[in-house]
Amino acid sequence: MGYGRNSAVKLNRTFLVVTLGVVLLVGFTIGILIGHFAISKTPKETSQPQDKPSCGAACEEPDADCIFGKLVAKMKADNIKEYLRRLTSTPHLAGTPADLTNAEYVRDQWLEQGLDSAKIYSYDVLLSYPEADNLVQLLDEEGGVNFTCAVKEQGLRPGEDSPDIVNPFNAYSGTGNVTGDLVYVNYARDVDFDKLAEIAPDLNLTGKILIARYGKIFRGNKAKHAEHHGAIGLILYSDPADYGSKNATSVYPHSWWLPDTGAQRGNLHVSDHKGDPLTPGYPAKDYAYRTSVEDSPLPTIPVHPIGYGDAKMFLRELRNTYNIPADWKGDLDIEYNIGPGFIGTNRQVRMEIHTSNQRRNTYNAIGFIRGAVEPDRYVLLGNHRDAWVFGAADPSSGTASMLELSRVFGELVKEGWRPRRSIMFCSWGAEEYGLIGSTEWVEEFSKNLGARSVTYLNVDLSVGGTHVPEVASTPLLYKTLYRAARKVASPEEQGRSLYDIWLMRNGARGLPRIDDLGAGSDFLSFAYQIGVPCAAFTYSPESESGFSIYPLYHSVYETFYFFETFLDPAFRRSLAIAQMWGEVARDLADSVIIPFDCNDYAEQLELSIDDLKGHYESEMKKKNINFDAIDSAVSKFKVAANNFHVKIDNM
Amino acid sequence: MGYGRNSAVKLNRTFLVVTLGVVLLVGFTIGILIGHFAISKTPKETSQPQDKPSCGAACEEPDADCIFGKLVAKMKADNIKEYLRRLTSTPHLAGTPADLTNAEYVRDQWLEQGLDSAKIYSYDVLLSYPEADNLVQLLDEEGGVNFTCAVKEQGLRPGEDSPDIVNPFNAYSGTGNVTGDLVYVNYARDVDFDKLAEIAPDLNLTGKILIARYGKIFRGNKAKHAEHHGAIGLILYSDPADYGSKNATSVYPHSWWLPDTGAQRGNLHVSDHKGDPLTPGYPAKDYAYRTSVEDSPLPTIPVHPIGYGDAKMFLRELRNTYNIPADWKGDLDIEYNIGPGFIGTNRQVRMEIHTSNQRRNTYNAIGFIRGAVEPDRYVLLGNHRDAWVFGAADPSSGTASMLELSRVFGELVKEGWRPRRSIMFCSWGAEEYGLIGSTEWVEEFSKNLGARSVTYLNVDLSVGGTHVPEVASTPLLYKTLYRAARKVASPEEQGRSLYDIWLMRNGARGLPRIDDLGAGSDFLSFAYQIGVPCAAFTYSPESESGFSIYPLYHSVYETFYFFETFLDPAFRRSLAIAQMWGEVARDLADSVIIPFDCNDYAEQLELSIDDLKGHYESEMKKKNINFDAIDSAVSKFKVAANNFHVKIDNM
Repeated sequence: MGYGRNSAVKLNRTFLVVTLGVVLLVGFTIGILIGHFAISKTPKETSQPQDKPSCGAACEEPDADCIFGKLVAKMKADNIKEYLRRLTSTPHLAGTPADLTNAEYVRDQWLEQGLDSAKIYSYDVLLSYPEADNLVQLLDEEGGVNFTCAVKEQGLRPGEDSPDIVNPFNAYSGTGNVTGDLVYVNYARDVDFDKLAEIAPDLNLTGKILIARYGKIFRGNKAKHAEHHGAIGLILYSDPADYGSKNATSVYPHSWWLPDTGAQRGNLHVSDHKGDPLTPGYPAKDYAYRTSVEDSPLPTIPVHPIGYGDAKMFLRELRNTYNIPADWKGDLDIEYNIGPGFIGTNRQVRMEIHTSNQRRNTYNAIGFIRGAVEPDRYVLLGNHRDAWVFGAADPSSGTASMLELSRVFGELVKEGWRPRRSIMFCSWGAEEYGLIGSTEWVEEFSKNLGARSVTYLNVDLSVGGTHVPEVASTPLLYKTLYRAARKVASPEEQGRSLYDIWLMRNGARGLPRIDDLGAGSDFLSFAYQIGVPCAAFTYSPESESGFSIYPLYHSVYETFYFFETFLDPAFRRSLAIAQMWGEVARDLADSVIIPFDCNDYAEQLELSIDDLKGHYESEMKKKNINFDAIDSAVSKFKVAANNFHVKIDNM
Repeated sequence: MGYGRNSAVKLNRTFLVVTLGVVLLVGFTIGILIGHFAISKTPKETSQPQDKPSCGAACEEPDADCIFGKLVAKMKADNIKEYLRRLTSTPHLAGTPADLTNAEYVRDQWLEQGLDSAKIYSYDVLLSYPEADNLVQLLDEEGGVNFTCAVKEQGLRPGEDSPDIVNPFNAYSGTGNVTGDLVYVNYARDVDFDKLAEIAPDLNLTGKILIARYGKIFRGNKAKHAEHHGAIGLILYSDPADYGSKNATSVYPHSWWLPDTGAQRGNLHVSDHKGDPLTPGYPAKDYAYRTSVEDSPLPTIPVHPIGYGDAKMFLRELRNTYNIPADWKGDLDIEYNIGPGFIGTNRQVRMEIHTSNQRRNTYNAIGFIRGAVEPDRYVLLGNHRDAWVFGAADPSSGTASMLELSRVFGELVKEGWRPRRSIMFCSWGAEEYGLIGSTEWVEEFSKNLGARSVTYLNVDLSVGGTHVPEVASTPLLYKTLYRAARKVASPEEQGRSLYDIWLMRNGARGLPRIDDLGAGSDFLSFAYQIGVPCAAFTYSPESESGFSIYPLYHSVYETFYFFETFLDPAFRRSLAIAQMWGEVARDLADSVIIPFDCNDYAEQLELSIDDLKGHYESEMKKKNINFDAIDSAVSKFKVAANNFHVKIDNM
């Protein structure tokens, strides 16, 4: 997962466009469905009752519940565990030899598992690596070095000091050497800079180095904001308020909380959905034209992440010139201050950042099961393969679930089953650098994929918490997702379904909660570039816990040990996600009528417009923008959607 | 037809991109074909020998030649004539009441003819009109008016002074009042300005008014060049060398040559394939966001067209300061000179231009025949409906042919025939303003059209000359076009086919000549925005005649009288074009296997690359650009195409 959960927050300036786009997309989708009916000539299957027991491997006549029963019977938690152990045995950063090695491993697994074909697609893209030790230092009055932040995270368990581990860095940071006064800017959001202007109107940020905590918004936007305000450098750190807990009595390796030496790696490229920075909108094949780095929207100032242990060394000495707002204070045991500069003598901060951009190859592996009746309609399942370090949760837990799911589908194919439509498994490279592998692939095949893809189903990390399934989706798929979740056993409580747990722990208005798709993983190009219905799911921590994501996210400590000890000891959650993923894919690939619910789409459109009105109606009225056109489009769509389902029901 | 024939000339900077695009498009097309096979379940029809006689209306078992026979039997030249008479009875400029009236007429015809449905699509777009008399004047030393160009073309036959006729103007010209010294710049091409810099290195064009002759390149680029060189105004005129003939003893209404009072209207919008200037890339629905006129690529200086009678008044008095190149001299009986300014006293030129941009509605009419087996594959036939004035050739001759063709298809449908795939007839608005109606429609439905369109077949003017069919096409369609032309009777000689005439009068390498698609009519968005195979055809004047297009092009004299008297007295050429159009459409809509020839595509790709190498290989080598990638792609495509056809042949 490359972007924080909060990057899904709607931006004012794009929301209306997106909403209008949704209306159009839905129109297309309905068109595709109608086309589908025109083509499908097979007589309608009789539907199976929801509560019909699964027939397991012994059934004679394959039907929906029978295939799901076989999926469940064949799928093993222990296999997922062993896949995960293999995948996390070494770091597997995009653009390193492990990128290709693991792509080949996945491809070979698929061929062995019985998929009809499996291929690797290579792209030559701009990535970023630290070329030498990145230094963040506190200088004394004479410019001597008082303190230097740790260059590496401390190894706390065996293997965590492997030479293959990339030191913490922010991909696409500017390279350089800067010295200046330090200013604390909370999360470096627009609202934080607005607040700062209010409480410190005389504070000029030009020429300053800023320190901000991770969380709330995508880190790339923090860098953009810092640059915009004239800063010459940006230090990012993980505050315990966001990545730990006041109540925690221990940290990793004794619990899942972030230790003070842990630092969050992460990409700064505000990609605007274009993947590789040098080939915006078209595939990064080796012969393609490249724009110049200067023309791509990458940060120019040095940006670097540190642990909260080191951050404390700076923060605790910042000058108390201004009244700091209460909600700017994190959970370190210090008095938070803004600066500029430090108490007492004229000390400064120095950043010497060697992170630099490099062209490297990254690889997607694509596995294919040919559909029996409509081979040119695709149901795609995808997960990225690249990790900042060991990536036990992000993304290798998803890769492990996918490999077990493909193994079982492969077995079914060997036994003679074949889905009505084609199924494609996608293992993406360089997601962490800005969804690059998936975006380049979509750019290369946009026309066919846009015309033929029924749905793209993304699982980035399959387990990132122990609490509840977290699902985001196009409304067309809501009912399909619920139907699948009802069939899958709860990993928490025997005798209950995943649906039950989901509803109980994250319900809203009598239904399990489904979020809108954000921009956080590889579904993005499918959903927003080529208009394919998408869903994404994962097992999540409690959303009330106050942190944006599991604390060890993107640190060296995201190991197999961590995953097995704290996230999913019996691999039951990984298994539940794999089963749900498989059943949704089966339903979409194998049902005679694609199970999209257009009425849900209509309802969600109405709710979105209400939401838009709630936030902006009065402001828009002032500019003479009214809602007549979109209201009319939505109400017409509602009628069309309803008529469409009446037609289906009467078929 | 909105752009001159020469706008098809390849631009250096876009050629490589287009060529690469073609490789990708072909890949998609092959993919679509493979998809097609996967879906089509109907058993293969036995093929019919090419020479089997048509069975006419009496046949029992419909087959390819039978349907063509019925088409021929039912189609009447006299009907085309009456449609043309009706369509040219009044001016029908885009954005005027006639735009809607004629769209409704076409729609109503289609409904009456028996098409399954017909609908009007409206777009609210930026057009341009002269709001008051546009004045181009010769001023004496004191600024008094010495001479004013005709505001109107002289009416030479009844009806040619109707108040509904729009005076000559260039759409999207800048509005304003400018006075300056005049300079003659030949065709205002880049090469002309280069030449001028060579022969008149001290001549500064800033602040000058330029006069250029029409022809060779799109007039919008002439305006761009003039602006680029600092000119404050541009006068365009039709030189007899380009729109007349030295040997002609008479002009319209006694022959088809342009009289000295005739002026060529025409659009200046260099649209970059985006249609409406204010909604680039998305449909101009009434609720859509509009960019500002300032941000759109419209000319800012006044530009205005005049007749060669008036042009002579200026040109004959230009100063003989520089040695004019021989090929800058036209066919007026004057000594051509460059200027700047006039012989003798210090006289200047004044332009007072009231042409101004206005938002108006334009209308597309779309008629639909539902396919029997694959209703969601479309074969589209299109022609624009708007004309600068009466538009007897451009475009109403095409509209008349289309209405007769749709009438006959409607009859066949009434008799029980239905094509395998759907057929759509498209009557576009505002083509003359930059392909606006077709582009907005493609923008509105790009996803469905891009995925489902088998081919778009354009006939702009069906007859613009008396010599030979002129065809431009995607290579996939070459064989289909030849097959159709062999079935159609020649309008020139009894007992011969259209193919014979075409080969005899415009053959190359043993085959009738087919050009690459340029950018000159409504196929543009289909071909280059959504990757649909396209063909375009018309009946043309002799290409050796030295003029770019028929002389009366875009003048008030393009009347029914002109068409019937000089272009197609018996309407046999209009009929031949309609028959060819219909047979190509039938073949694509009704054949079990879509008759695309991928081997022709491969061959054409190879020739294009050779062409590219011939022009640019040495220059590109200097910049370290080699042809390895594209050579490899083309040779792989060639193998794939060949394998594909072997597979088809063995089916």
